[in-house]
Amino acid sequence: MYKEFKICVIGLGYVGLPLAVSFSKHFSTIGFDINKKRINNLKKNIDTNNELYGFRKKKLLFTCLEEDIKNSNFYVVAVPTPVNKKNLPDLRNLIKASKLVGSVLKKNDFVVYESTVYPGLTEEVCIKILEKVSGLNVTKEKKIQDFYCGYSPERINPGDKINKLNNITKIVSANNFHARKIIHNVYKNITKRIHVAESIKIAESAKVIENAQRDINIAFINELSLIFNKLNINFKDILKAASTKWNFVNFTPGLVGGHCIGVDPFYLAHKSILAGYTPKVLLSGRKINDQMSIHFAKNFLEKIKKIIKNKKKYNILVLGLSFKENVKDIRNSKVFDSINYLKKKHNVKIYDPLVSKLDVPQEYHKMFSKLKERDFFDGVFISSPHAIFLKNLFLSKLEKCCRKKNVVFDLKHKLNMTRNKLNIISA
Amino acid sequence: MYKEFKICVIGLGYVGLPLAVSFSKHFSTIGFDINKKRINNLKKNIDTNNELYGFRKKKLLFTCLEEDIKNSNFYVVAVPTPVNKKNLPDLRNLIKASKLVGSVLKKNDFVVYESTVYPGLTEEVCIKILEKVSGLNVTKEKKIQDFYCGYSPERINPGDKINKLNNITKIVSANNFHARKIIHNVYKNITKRIHVAESIKIAESAKVIENAQRDINIAFINELSLIFNKLNINFKDILKAASTKWNFVNFTPGLVGGHCIGVDPFYLAHKSILAGYTPKVLLSGRKINDQMSIHFAKNFLEKIKKIIKNKKKYNILVLGLSFKENVKDIRNSKVFDSINYLKKKHNVKIYDPLVSKLDVPQEYHKMFSKLKERDFFDGVFISSPHAIFLKNLFLSKLEKCCRKKNVVFDLKHKLNMTRNKLNIISA
Repeated sequence: MYKEFKICVIGLGYVGLPLAVSFSKHFSTIGFDINKKRINNLKKNIDTNNELYGFRKKKLLFTCLEEDIKNSNFYVVAVPTPVNKKNLPDLRNLIKASKLVGSVLKKNDFVVYESTVYPGLTEEVCIKILEKVSGLNVTKEKKIQDFYCGYSPERINPGDKINKLNNITKIVSANNFHARKIIHNVYKNITKRIHVAESIKIAESAKVIENAQRDINIAFINELSLIFNKLNINFKDILKAASTKWNFVNFTPGLVGGHCIGVDPFYLAHKSILAGYTPKVLLSGRKINDQMSIHFAKNFLEKIKKIIKNKKKYNILVLGLSFKENVKDIRNSKVFDSINYLKKKHNVKIYDPLVSKLDVPQEYHKMFSKLKERDFFDGVFISSPHAIFLKNLFLSKLEKCCRKKNVVFDLKHKLNMTRNKLNIISA
Repeated sequence: MYKEFKICVIGLGYVGLPLAVSFSKHFSTIGFDINKKRINNLKKNIDTNNELYGFRKKKLLFTCLEEDIKNSNFYVVAVPTPVNKKNLPDLRNLIKASKLVGSVLKKNDFVVYESTVYPGLTEEVCIKILEKVSGLNVTKEKKIQDFYCGYSPERINPGDKINKLNNITKIVSANNFHARKIIHNVYKNITKRIHVAESIKIAESAKVIENAQRDINIAFINELSLIFNKLNINFKDILKAASTKWNFVNFTPGLVGGHCIGVDPFYLAHKSILAGYTPKVLLSGRKINDQMSIHFAKNFLEKIKKIIKNKKKYNILVLGLSFKENVKDIRNSKVFDSINYLKKKHNVKIYDPLVSKLDVPQEYHKMFSKLKERDFFDGVFISSPHAIFLKNLFLSKLEKCCRKKNVVFDLKHKLNMTRNKLNIISA
């Protein structure tokens, strides 16, 4: 029976596009997004996120027209769930998508959410909207089931070429046994292993703690970087030694930007605060990570000052603008906070071959370097260590741009090689 | 040359005893401890820590007499480094041991510290004492080297039968190249793999962050346990789902007592504060973990109240008194805080077949149970889940002691089996 599903994926970003492409190999599939430019690109097989090179559309239709999705019967919602300026959940995309699905929902249809939410949100907010708009019911009793609902948290890791949708374990959950069975059957076409969670709330909670755990671990490492910088002990060597213990967990310092790790803990914190407990550890991690762009910039300047005295205005090159290495996405990238701090007193140039100048705000355009400078930079701040930056060819180029006395600040401890002409210092 | 070393291990606890026994297989070795009772037991091959069953003494002399150690030429200091009531480093053992070694130190002798310290302590405190008391010098210059010094952090994990001294990677470090070479050669006799750290400070720092990382990760999981308890979502199921992600790090809730994980972060924090930075993440973890004994007791009582109404004074059994499972050591065990909280209003019995009654303070003696109670306990609080508690035989016994309506609070998520007569609830 389930082979007759007509799938519609709502939201075609990092999460939705791979889902739509994978589903389309087994089902008639529609990919819907409100962004016309995105749809036009996808129609030409262009993924500007660089995640799916030359993907193939098989039984896959891209659209931004609401009427096109009416005949679907299995909806997958994969819209972004960011936070607002107060770090509170911004549910507008999710509410909008739920209203859209509610408006086309028919009896026996399925709706599965993939967006990251706080525990309870799918049932307390999304399903409520679906019911209200559609006039149908979702319930745990089989008899009065009009439509079925599930939650399957996305585990997309932008820039990761190993852990992809088809080879990871995917969690699925649903609001009753029947729905769980069907959703499981549908999803097992597109992913290797499935973990069936006991409830939607369990699946929602699992997702949000995965990223919260990464956030707190990076925060811990970032704080250690601050401490050992104060104590003037080489942190990279410390981590190398500690990692020889059987249960040490390897993390490196870094700016936590992007759309997941820096955001999801706030979703959990929000729900926890509503329930009467203000998280201490969780929010201390968030706070440290949000301050690191300034901390790292300050440490970097201190390092330069130690090497290059009697100079007040340094020539600085920032390498990498995206929120993490090997992606081109600069949304929620924390490096701009570092740049803004550095450029107050210093001459800052920026370089990122992955990022399109058109995506960068106008105010930074005059800072773009082509690495044609000779014997010029006092300091290099490598925030997003793209694979290309680690290559010999690139480092030779970099050497030419740098002055004899220089500091190359390797924020994420990714530069392994020693180069005579570069003074590489780890955060 | 190094085979002629006469080794003396100062302090014969969890760390010193295995070291002394291992060294004695290759070198003439003396084990020194100020605790006469301990020495008398060790002379009879009895290790009251239960870590070395029937160890063999080969060229190994145990003593508490200072004069016995005078002829040694390779000293290993493995004394406890606890915190005081204000959570500040209590260095008295380390200072005393350093004075003792200093008083017998001769030219060309070696001193290696294994005790956990804060970064810099070995050189800033211990070596200073050695130099002052002995009148000799340790320096980084080879010429005026009177004695050699090193630091090799212990990685003993009480109760762990897998990761033992002989099969783990051990870090060694020393104050100069020559010392490092010799210490490496000596240690490679007793351990499988050696990581040579760049400096004593690097080795000290690596050790202290290993335990701090465990502390913050357990604190994070403990905080999640608080949150999901408030939200009334089964935390064990959440962890099961989250652990299907490729990079999720598996930890369970628990009381952090003992002599390492709950202590070492304070050493690092102390040094960091002296250097001008008060750790936020690190100390938030410490705070949460120190509060958990009360939090868990409260949650446990809430669970009972939901099941057993109209009763004000519950009969409670606390299983496990030691600071962690499968050890008999109750020093720094946090479960006594839980017991003190529970016994304010309820009738509390305690049971731990590993722990000697003689080690438990007098005030708790009347609470000891022999599990002869029948149909008696409303709640069971399992804090240290010894292997024996997880066995069918024991659980059958437990069923008989419990009332029909009961709550078995599985604090560390170790009880996997479902039992008809026990209402097992995870923290």
